[in-house]
Amino acid sequence: MLMLQSPLTRKLAAYVALSGADLETLARLHRRRRSFQSGHELIHEGQGRASAFILSEGWAYSYKLLPDGGRQIVDFHIPGDFLGLRSILFRTADHSIEAITRIEATEVLAPDILDAFAEAPRLATAVLWAASRDEAVVVEHLVNVGRRSAEERMAHFLLELGARLALVGAGDRTGFDCPLTQYHLADALGLSAVHVNRVLRHLREEGLVTFRNGRVDFDDFDRLKKVAAFDTGYLDQDGPLLR
Amino acid sequence: MLMLQSPLTRKLAAYVALSGADLETLARLHRRRRSFQSGHELIHEGQGRASAFILSEGWAYSYKLLPDGGRQIVDFHIPGDFLGLRSILFRTADHSIEAITRIEATEVLAPDILDAFAEAPRLATAVLWAASRDEAVVVEHLVNVGRRSAEERMAHFLLELGARLALVGAGDRTGFDCPLTQYHLADALGLSAVHVNRVLRHLREEGLVTFRNGRVDFDDFDRLKKVAAFDTGYLDQDGPLLR
Repeated sequence: MLMLQSPLTRKLAAYVALSGADLETLARLHRRRRSFQSGHELIHEGQGRASAFILSEGWAYSYKLLPDGGRQIVDFHIPGDFLGLRSILFRTADHSIEAITRIEATEVLAPDILDAFAEAPRLATAVLWAASRDEAVVVEHLVNVGRRSAEERMAHFLLELGARLALVGAGDRTGFDCPLTQYHLADALGLSAVHVNRVLRHLREEGLVTFRNGRVDFDDFDRLKKVAAFDTGYLDQDGPLLR
Repeated sequence: MLMLQSPLTRKLAAYVALSGADLETLARLHRRRRSFQSGHELIHEGQGRASAFILSEGWAYSYKLLPDGGRQIVDFHIPGDFLGLRSILFRTADHSIEAITRIEATEVLAPDILDAFAEAPRLATAVLWAASRDEAVVVEHLVNVGRRSAEERMAHFLLELGARLALVGAGDRTGFDCPLTQYHLADALGLSAVHVNRVLRHLREEGLVTFRNGRVDFDDFDRLKKVAAFDTGYLDQDGPLLR
């Protein structure tokens, strides 16, 4: 029953009603506990034989560096997320992952995944669902950078984080604790730090959302959703679908 | 043995050495053959109970429409690709998919995936690998739009298509047949059609690549790779990894 408390279990339960055997298999994936300091690089782009991790506490981010030194942040990771699942399936990691806060995670190796899938095919479907959801989030980040104005993309991004955190019990309609800096936001949203600052001030002055002292407060959740044209459909998290 | 010829089988074989049982399971996924005309919408954003498809011939593309009528093309799909795998796992489709050419595909329903995973866990891992590769491609499109110049992103995009087509036997270092229009390129790369035209002319005049009459010719493959800083690592397609 303890496993029902793990953020990954809680997240997968939004998709599939997990059986006792599924939960046991999932528990075995949580064997190798690790702690990392803020700033620790868990996975380095180009690295072979990388491990994957299941994040249980803290925040991390995945990114790619460009030859000219530019950085594109692909996504932020919160409890319940896989870190570097692609890296254990691929020959070499195609992106880097770094801890933003101190984190608690469990290390997962490629054979663990194969064993888990052989034991629990429904769990395999749930992991594919979680990977698909990660992809849907990256797709929205592409739409953010490609098609949304600076304010729309900031609003969309903060609402997305809030919805993802709510699924694992770390946020609600009032807001969430957020360790990100303006540099993180800038490199995720394709804006400069100065621009991020201006956009956040504008959203605050409009009475929509306030990001200050490590906390995001949704001052007017419904109006913010309208500004961002935010629809949670792509997060697919409204209660177990597969029973 | 016929299944060895299917583009999906060929693609998955880049990751996993498929057993006879895996191949039989894969063959059963290819039961419901469908043909669609160019322009047919296979999946519509927001649609419930969508089917997924395995593309065996022709090209399609996935996209999202914005409230203001803007379109962000997320990816183009070629033989061997899943279309809308997320749509059968999710309650509602989070994106739309349309045929660019006449296509041949097989329809896959959610229970087919569950059954296939229960029968062949290695195949489950291979499908997760293919989904991860799709995600890695979307990540590169995010880097394209977020961090690369118009010429770098065009060069990167054409090299990526070439590498993906080569994996299923439809392209090589000299180039590939390409049914895309400048409007497709514009909406994928976050450029205007006029800008696409200018960038393509510049790349052609530089002796790097020529896109004309439905054909992309790599005039100087190695120099083009340098311009794009293109590294195929994220496509993870250099021979079976898992034996």
